[in-house]
Amino acid sequence: MSAPAVSQMDQIKLAMTSINDLFNTEVIGKRNFDALDRVYTADARILPPGAPIIAGRENIKKFWRDLVQSVNAKSAVLTSVDVIPAGDSVVEIGRATLRMAPEGQPAAELEVKYVVCWRQEDAQWKWHIDIWNPNS
Amino acid sequence: MSAPAVSQMDQIKLAMTSINDLFNTEVIGKRNFDALDRVYTADARILPPGAPIIAGRENIKKFWRDLVQSVNAKSAVLTSVDVIPAGDSVVEIGRATLRMAPEGQPAAELEVKYVVCWRQEDAQWKWHIDIWNPNS
Repeated sequence: MSAPAVSQMDQIKLAMTSINDLFNTEVIGKRNFDALDRVYTADARILPPGAPIIAGRENIKKFWRDLVQSVNAKSAVLTSVDVIPAGDSVVEIGRATLRMAPEGQPAAELEVKYVVCWRQEDAQWKWHIDIWNPNS
Repeated sequence: MSAPAVSQMDQIKLAMTSINDLFNTEVIGKRNFDALDRVYTADARILPPGAPIIAGRENIKKFWRDLVQSVNAKSAVLTSVDVIPAGDSVVEIGRATLRMAPEGQPAAELEVKYVVCWRQEDAQWKWHIDIWNPNS
């Protein structure tokens, strides 16, 4: 028996899962903020709650470094809810659980939902526009 | 002299501005929530801060009716920051100013930013995925 064919969309979804896992394990888990080079396009934009739009990967790295340290983030598990092809982009709707242990406070979990527009950069799928907000 | 050619993208942007204005003047200003039929696709999804994902235009109408009444919203001026074609979708990054006059409280302004994925339904451009969060 030959292996079942893997569709192009399945391949893209696998690549997306791999990057979402990298964000959790490498960026948040190991605080390796240079791994964000593989997560975001060079001219990506993020729209975080409580702040204006942040443009460009270097500024985005600074945002995550500051946030992870300030709340003592431990993990950020991302789960795709829907993946919608849109020309040379893919729009992902997802949910995330952020675990943190802020100094002097009890450990906490934050449930958020997000929309990410993915785009290819150097043949790699990356986050190009990233916006999220809390569920409660 | 003939009129200057209007590109397809310019036409789409004009249609988008018209719908964004409709949301402000008709939905928020006049509390005509049936005008949301012209704003959202039938199977649209919104991702509001402080709530889970809401799917389907009828549920979205209920969300806006409840929100507008609870904060006594007066206007919601939407401004496109960037408009990005993506296959049969258009991704819009924007900012909005929501003005409200909650009972027993001073009038207030809330600055938010948003990402909307637009899609055509019955040849009309409408909001298909809509997520936002506050700037502060």
